[in-house]
Amino acid sequence: MDQDRLRRLIEALENGEADIDEVLEKLRMLPYEDIGYAKLDHHRSIRRGFPEAIFCTGKTTEQVLEIADRILSNQGEVVLTKVGSELASELKARFQEKVTHASEANMAFLGNCSQKVDGKVAVVTAGTSDISVAEEAVALCDRYGVEVSRIYDVGVAGVHRLIPYVPAINASDVVIVIAGMEGALPSIVSGFTDKPVIAVPTSIGYGANFRGLAALLGMLCTCSPGIAVVNIDNGFGAAVFALSILRIAHSKKNG
Amino acid sequence: MDQDRLRRLIEALENGEADIDEVLEKLRMLPYEDIGYAKLDHHRSIRRGFPEAIFCTGKTTEQVLEIADRILSNQGEVVLTKVGSELASELKARFQEKVTHASEANMAFLGNCSQKVDGKVAVVTAGTSDISVAEEAVALCDRYGVEVSRIYDVGVAGVHRLIPYVPAINASDVVIVIAGMEGALPSIVSGFTDKPVIAVPTSIGYGANFRGLAALLGMLCTCSPGIAVVNIDNGFGAAVFALSILRIAHSKKNG
Amino acid sequence: MDQDRLRRLIEALENGEADIDEVLEKLRMLPYEDIGYAKLDHHRSIRRGFPEAIFCTGKTTEQVLEIADRILSNQGEVVLTKVGSELASELKARFQEKVTHASEANMAFLGNCSQKVDGKVAVVTAGTSDISVAEEAVALCDRYGVEVSRIYDVGVAGVHRLIPYVPAINASDVVIVIAGMEGALPSIVSGFTDKPVIAVPTSIGYGANFRGLAALLGMLCTCSPGIAVVNIDNGFGAAVFALSILRIAHSKKNG
Amino acid sequence: MDQDRLRRLIEALENGEADIDEVLEKLRMLPYEDIGYAKLDHHRSIRRGFPEAIFCTGKTTEQVLEIADRILSNQGEVVLTKVGSELASELKARFQEKVTHASEANMAFLGNCSQKVDGKVAVVTAGTSDISVAEEAVALCDRYGVEVSRIYDVGVAGVHRLIPYVPAINASDVVIVIAGMEGALPSIVSGFTDKPVIAVPTSIGYGANFRGLAALLGMLCTCSPGIAVVNIDNGFGAAVFALSILRIAHSKKNG
Amino acid sequence: MDQDRLRRLIEALENGEADIDEVLEKLRMLPYEDIGYAKLDHHRSIRRGFPEAIFCTGKTTEQVLEIADRILSNQGEVVLTKVGSELASELKARFQEKVTHASEANMAFLGNCSQKVDGKVAVVTAGTSDISVAEEAVALCDRYGVEVSRIYDVGVAGVHRLIPYVPAINASDVVIVIAGMEGALPSIVSGFTDKPVIAVPTSIGYGANFRGLAALLGMLCTCSPGIAVVNIDNGFGAAVFALSILRIAHSKKNG
Amino acid sequence: MDQDRLRRLIEALENGEADIDEVLEKLRMLPYEDIGYAKLDHHRSIRRGFPEAIFCTGKTTEQVLEIADRILSNQGEVVLTKVGSELASELKARFQEKVTHASEANMAFLGNCSQKVDGKVAVVTAGTSDISVAEEAVALCDRYGVEVSRIYDVGVAGVHRLIPYVPAINASDVVIVIAGMEGALPSIVSGFTDKPVIAVPTSIGYGANFRGLAALLGMLCTCSPGIAVVNIDNGFGAAVFALSILRIAHSKKNG
Amino acid sequence: MDQDRLRRLIEALENGEADIDEVLEKLRMLPYEDIGYAKLDHHRSIRRGFPEAIFCTGKTTEQVLEIADRILSNQGEVVLTKVGSELASELKARFQEKVTHASEANMAFLGNCSQKVDGKVAVVTAGTSDISVAEEAVALCDRYGVEVSRIYDVGVAGVHRLIPYVPAINASDVVIVIAGMEGALPSIVSGFTDKPVIAVPTSIGYGANFRGLAALLGMLCTCSPGIAVVNIDNGFGAAVFALSILRIAHSKKNG
Amino acid sequence: MDQDRLRRLIEALENGEADIDEVLEKLRMLPYEDIGYAKLDHHRSIRRGFPEAIFCTGKTTEQVLEIADRILSNQGEVVLTKVGSELASELKARFQEKVTHASEANMAFLGNCSQKVDGKVAVVTAGTSDISVAEEAVALCDRYGVEVSRIYDVGVAGVHRLIPYVPAINASDVVIVIAGMEGALPSIVSGFTDKPVIAVPTSIGYGANFRGLAALLGMLCTCSPGIAVVNIDNGFGAAVFALSILRIAHSKKNG
Repeated sequence: MDQDRLRRLIEALENGEADIDEVLEKLRMLPYEDIGYAKLDHHRSIRRGFPEAIFCTGKTTEQVLEIADRILSNQGEVVLTKVGSELASELKARFQEKVTHASEANMAFLGNCSQKVDGKVAVVTAGTSDISVAEEAVALCDRYGVEVSRIYDVGVAGVHRLIPYVPAINASDVVIVIAGMEGALPSIVSGFTDKPVIAVPTSIGYGANFRGLAALLGMLCTCSPGIAVVNIDNGFGAAVFALSILRIAHSKKNG
Repeated sequence: MDQDRLRRLIEALENGEADIDEVLEKLRMLPYEDIGYAKLDHHRSIRRGFPEAIFCTGKTTEQVLEIADRILSNQGEVVLTKVGSELASELKARFQEKVTHASEANMAFLGNCSQKVDGKVAVVTAGTSDISVAEEAVALCDRYGVEVSRIYDVGVAGVHRLIPYVPAINASDVVIVIAGMEGALPSIVSGFTDKPVIAVPTSIGYGANFRGLAALLGMLCTCSPGIAVVNIDNGFGAAVFALSILRIAHSKKNG
Repeated sequence: MDQDRLRRLIEALENGEADIDEVLEKLRMLPYEDIGYAKLDHHRSIRRGFPEAIFCTGKTTEQVLEIADRILSNQGEVVLTKVGSELASELKARFQEKVTHASEANMAFLGNCSQKVDGKVAVVTAGTSDISVAEEAVALCDRYGVEVSRIYDVGVAGVHRLIPYVPAINASDVVIVIAGMEGALPSIVSGFTDKPVIAVPTSIGYGANFRGLAALLGMLCTCSPGIAVVNIDNGFGAAVFALSILRIAHSKKNG
Repeated sequence: MDQDRLRRLIEALENGEADIDEVLEKLRMLPYEDIGYAKLDHHRSIRRGFPEAIFCTGKTTEQVLEIADRILSNQGEVVLTKVGSELASELKARFQEKVTHASEANMAFLGNCSQKVDGKVAVVTAGTSDISVAEEAVALCDRYGVEVSRIYDVGVAGVHRLIPYVPAINASDVVIVIAGMEGALPSIVSGFTDKPVIAVPTSIGYGANFRGLAALLGMLCTCSPGIAVVNIDNGFGAAVFALSILRIAHSKKNG
Repeated sequence: MDQDRLRRLIEALENGEADIDEVLEKLRMLPYEDIGYAKLDHHRSIRRGFPEAIFCTGKTTEQVLEIADRILSNQGEVVLTKVGSELASELKARFQEKVTHASEANMAFLGNCSQKVDGKVAVVTAGTSDISVAEEAVALCDRYGVEVSRIYDVGVAGVHRLIPYVPAINASDVVIVIAGMEGALPSIVSGFTDKPVIAVPTSIGYGANFRGLAALLGMLCTCSPGIAVVNIDNGFGAAVFALSILRIAHSKKNG
Repeated sequence: MDQDRLRRLIEALENGEADIDEVLEKLRMLPYEDIGYAKLDHHRSIRRGFPEAIFCTGKTTEQVLEIADRILSNQGEVVLTKVGSELASELKARFQEKVTHASEANMAFLGNCSQKVDGKVAVVTAGTSDISVAEEAVALCDRYGVEVSRIYDVGVAGVHRLIPYVPAINASDVVIVIAGMEGALPSIVSGFTDKPVIAVPTSIGYGANFRGLAALLGMLCTCSPGIAVVNIDNGFGAAVFALSILRIAHSKKNG
Repeated sequence: MDQDRLRRLIEALENGEADIDEVLEKLRMLPYEDIGYAKLDHHRSIRRGFPEAIFCTGKTTEQVLEIADRILSNQGEVVLTKVGSELASELKARFQEKVTHASEANMAFLGNCSQKVDGKVAVVTAGTSDISVAEEAVALCDRYGVEVSRIYDVGVAGVHRLIPYVPAINASDVVIVIAGMEGALPSIVSGFTDKPVIAVPTSIGYGANFRGLAALLGMLCTCSPGIAVVNIDNGFGAAVFALSILRIAHSKKNG
Repeated sequence: MDQDRLRRLIEALENGEADIDEVLEKLRMLPYEDIGYAKLDHHRSIRRGFPEAIFCTGKTTEQVLEIADRILSNQGEVVLTKVGSELASELKARFQEKVTHASEANMAFLGNCSQKVDGKVAVVTAGTSDISVAEEAVALCDRYGVEVSRIYDVGVAGVHRLIPYVPAINASDVVIVIAGMEGALPSIVSGFTDKPVIAVPTSIGYGANFRGLAALLGMLCTCSPGIAVVNIDNGFGAAVFALSILRIAHSKKNG
């Protein structure tokens, strides 16, 4: 529909029905919906490949519900992160069967996923305590039809625990490695594979960990060059990055 | 050759000519060459997809030359980073026409690249001062036959300078964005593309930049989820990561 | 009245009715009212252009009420920041119709604003979560009769969301830009305008944001030279600074 | 000239001589000149109110000379910061009488200043060691015809040294206060004036100063709300910000 | 009594009733009372000039009561800091009229003060919110008979508020200055007096204050050399230091 | 039992009943038990000398109980740290008389300790508030039959309190020194003994202590070379390290 | 002389020869001499008890010589810190026999010390490397006629090295303790004395010392309440503080 | 000799030839030699088990030579660290054949080692650049007759490089692991051994390594409990700690 409106506008310009200022004004207005405290970017899925996600921390339930409603109407699907159980109930009350709640990941999805992505992702954690961050990555990959291998609790102090999973890691296209404390697991995983390794530091730990700082610095200073890092506890961002990688492969294959 | 030795060893085990401890002992010795101060990992290129790189800072010229010689003999090619002009001369004196010197990148390569990687990478910098880090990424991509678009000096204060290059960015498979100071360019580039964006903070700046800390934190805290970050000034690591992405696509296409 | 007392004092000195020490002693006493735990600066509005503000965090309700009462009696108006809902009720109970409560901004005003300031201020936020800080700036500008454009949720990842608002920004005299996370929005806004940009980092974000540090360092390291920064979450300070700019313009115009 | 080309382009579009893609392509090219390692933004002075400045640190002499040459040809003037004496000589050899060298400020200007700004700025330093940063601000203000009061070495430990200068400060439109060590001077100056105070921390100091961090944090945490802060040692940025304030006043007066 | 036991011990040694090891063993035992989780240093008041103080944070009520009881029995007086209202009640229940509770200071004293110190101390705060730290200093000085001038809320932004109190400051022997936020007040006070200035940073503030770090660094980097600093919020330590100064003067006078 | 299975596997390989891949596959599986969210390392006690410990923070009660159950079944004993009173009750309900609860240490043990270690450890604290960390070390040493001397509250300000305990310290094999605040006690203890000193910084303190950072940095920067440091509040790690030292001595003696 | 001019001014006011504005104007001018880049505070020695000191780092030789010359003419004496050997030569060439150069302290004095202070100061260092900072304190104390005990190299790891000097420390009025690395010496010294202890952290050390940060934090977090701290490497500030203490005692004694 | 003097002193006390004060005075004097800027602790080797070491950084050549001479005369041997080549030449000129220079370790030894220690230490490094720190540990262990296995360049990215050396590590009594960058190697080594692992972070690395901070925090936050950490680049301290461990074993065996 938007595509149509866009085409008509450009024709109006070319055949003189509109001057350039009118057109620019309209072009500006097309992709937004302004609800006062939020500007919804309904063309985002075209431009970025993903629908707009709502980071729920720091927003009121009313704001979340209204923003979600508008995005759902326009884009057909919504991704919500940091969804507590109370907010999840409100979402279910409002959007009913349209809601999928990934409770371990504190995420929710509205509507059907418009897009499927081919590929395999291994999600590896150092400890049991890193699992909630890992599940954020898993939930998003699942949603997009990506095949996920969960490889949990294979941390550094027992590196031999990792070795049985090296084949599973190498059978994936992308590896997400999640670790708190000293954050060394991504370096080690990277030594066993030629796949891109996305490292997620977590705030798990105490003392000199300084809320994830130790893990973050360790991952950035890795001596293994095939690693890139996202923010502390940002399992969602790691999954979006992994999906963006898989789409390249997908388009190449089909292109 | 190694492949042959490996096969023979396993046969020796299976037909009883060697017991398991002898075999394990030999397996351990196969992939290494120990020159005292360095353990060369000649199987690395099989396992990791790249030959071992020599990070020259903090090594004597003698160490670099000997390590390079051994890797060259066994693996047929070597990558050297942080190669100053003096070391470059020594490398040329020793290895002559086998040396390729990428002087803007402070890198050198020995031997022929054994492997080519399909794909396109856009290397984007915020300022002119970030170029030396960018060239590190460019030199490695070039070496592997990847097509590179250099898009330099399109920094944040004039975001409209970036817009003409959005088509070139979207025509790439992977985008490497390099920025010092506030490090905001990766977020902005990411807003215009669905490609994976690898962000490289640089130590360019002064005062509250604290040697790249401001750019690093900024990139990690990006509000755009499709970004991953490597260490400050680590153009080489960004390129290795980009190549690991392109190889997935390549293998998918051909698999 | 103070003016009169001041004049009489100086005459007393000049005609020998008082010696210099007596006069100095009296001059010292004039502008203050000492209520033990607070020294009220009733001449402040003459000297600084604004009445004294009460930063309510860390003061007891009794202290706030008494300080407010004294300032109101002497200066005719009071500004209070960080006013929670409970304190707001106490203020209403005590000062009744003299109270204006700006609840979204956690501010209160007592009495009538003695002064109006000409001009337009654009208040721009990167996200919805930055709005409470923005409203602090808006409430103070409103109070002084300044025309405010609220431009909310136009953050960096979708810089094109900002473009439709460039005309509104350029129609303002001063721009206040409020952002958490990587804090890049002020640099970008500054690229589109020749107006002074006052940047307010917020503590919105998580992980490597370190309670606003990432946004703060990013804003200070901006590559755009027309930006100055106030403390994290300090919307009030940004507004006072903006008003001080507008008064120059005003006085120039009328001077 | 650019204005003419712009008008002709739009007419071409409107009367059908060019289609929208051709026009957009040309529009993109208009304001830039791409010299490979730099994108020169020749429309910047229209959009931002100042010509593009060259931050010379980290650029080769050749790069600086070529960038300067291009900006000079297109915009008629250039501002260069962090110009050491050697680079200054090269600039004089190349641009001869077109160069103005502000040696105390480590700045240079090419061509004539196209624009004058009305107003008065007081530049205040805490100590003698802060003067080089102050002169950066002074040189830029001078260039634009702004009247500058230099008030140097009036630091905090002798606050009474400041008092005689309060009238000069209040006779200015904007105050730039520059201080290292504990960075307390801006708070104190702000207590005596209703003018906007732009605070510049310097890296002067030792020990717990941590290269300007103490002064920077101190200025941000000021208890006086009429202050905004720029980066450590950034006298240039403070002056650009001050000029942006003065232009509002100027346009109001004449508007 | 202890003095007697000490004398007898030494005599025993000198007249051969005890050998050196027995004596050393007894000497070791004299000044302590070991109650398992605490070693009470009953000679401390002789050696250090003050009775042992109990820092109550992180101790159970039982531990505090028992430690207090033992010290009271042996030394005749006890000082307790960080005494919440609940603990204060327990102390009153147990020690009844022997308890003096300084509630604004969160301190308690048991027994009579064995020692009086001559002198005057001025306790100066920047804001009303710093008063609880100030009262800690006041309570201890009071206890020792020192004359205290409370000079509260004379902070930096209105330095003229301080000026009327300069005579009171100069009439003191020692000045304790307590400030949060940018921590500039000690520098300013120091400019007006030749008395030793003990600076106490407080954790009052927000954002770039980082829980007192800004005030602490500012006070350490003061350009005024007559200042020394104690830990954040440590009003008690400042008072002990002030008392140690006053005792020198006292002993000199009477020596 | 595992020993038997291992022997049989190797025989199967050597007599041709299994090929190398089958054996490797089985070898991988032997030492683990995979319960989904945790990989239990039942060979750990062989390889590392201690059974696997469960760090209970961040795990659900259900996870702790199941992990504990599995380890208990396979390894015969379990160590749990950071066990709150509620979790302790659940453990007792489930494992009954098999549970030993060291409540001051927030630890629990299941099963019988399979191993005794000869030796003496002195556990020294600076203050009463450091005792909970000390008890963590004491509980583990006790469990392994090590003789422990508790030397509590001998902190730096009264170094003479330490002197009576020097003989007890020198009668130990290893010294664990636990201190918050400035963390100086390990340096001092180390000056009196030739035993290895394991230093444990604690988060006890306030202000410039920054949650244990001051103590940690102080211990690392000790001028006494015979000290090594573990993480803040990590009494458990210090005890494991001490036990690993004692076992060397033990094996030497008996070897 | 100044005293006379001051008296005459006030008489002029009181007998009507001058009005208040003329007098204030003259009063402002009296204590200053403005040499452009510096404001010399010739009344400082009256107000603060010490002549103005010149911190030579960051000033040109010309600036130092001129400032010194003016202060010498007006105040009769000058103190200079951070005087390198080259600058010392220039001072001798210019001021000849009026210069006293304390080369180990990197200090110089011009003219005769106008003031003597009674008392004894012990200057204690942890190591030999801290001596240059200590000598700064010694030189200033010497200058003022204070008796100094140098107690060097008695650091923490051998606390028994300190014990023989405890009597010397207790025979002083004030103790200055200088230490790098972990900075624990002030706490220990403080445990043996009831004198005020001024702690000076130094930047001596490496690694986790972070240029004096470890020593600084350690000293601030001391568990001994009778300690106050000055900036890293600031031996001069410690001496000024010590002198301000001695003067109280002195005035009390003579008062 | 000292032992004799000590015995005679105590006899003098017991038979009344000396009173206790005389004896204490003499006892104090015995173990020291005071050469003004240094207090030499000639009893240290008795008390601490090692002769006093001279940390040469920050001492003049003259100071080093004199201190070394005195220690050599009294204790028969000296250890010097951070000995540059120039200082080494001076030591050889002065002490001739008594000097042993360990040039890779930047250490020197004077005299014969009075003491031998039984045992084996494995010194493991992550990279070639960590070798200079490792050699410091090796040189000291060598000196004391300890058997050292050098296992260099087995860093994390190729953890399989480590595996062949696991037997050598397990054949040692103590393991010293040295690593820069992310500092993960100690955790991994610890997973393969039950020996105490002493971790040494190095300042090798760049960017987010922040001069060894990343490695330091990583090692402290290790998830493996059998690790303790010394200061950044402190190979010497690690060796002293290892020797103190070996002596326990030695004394147990022989005790």
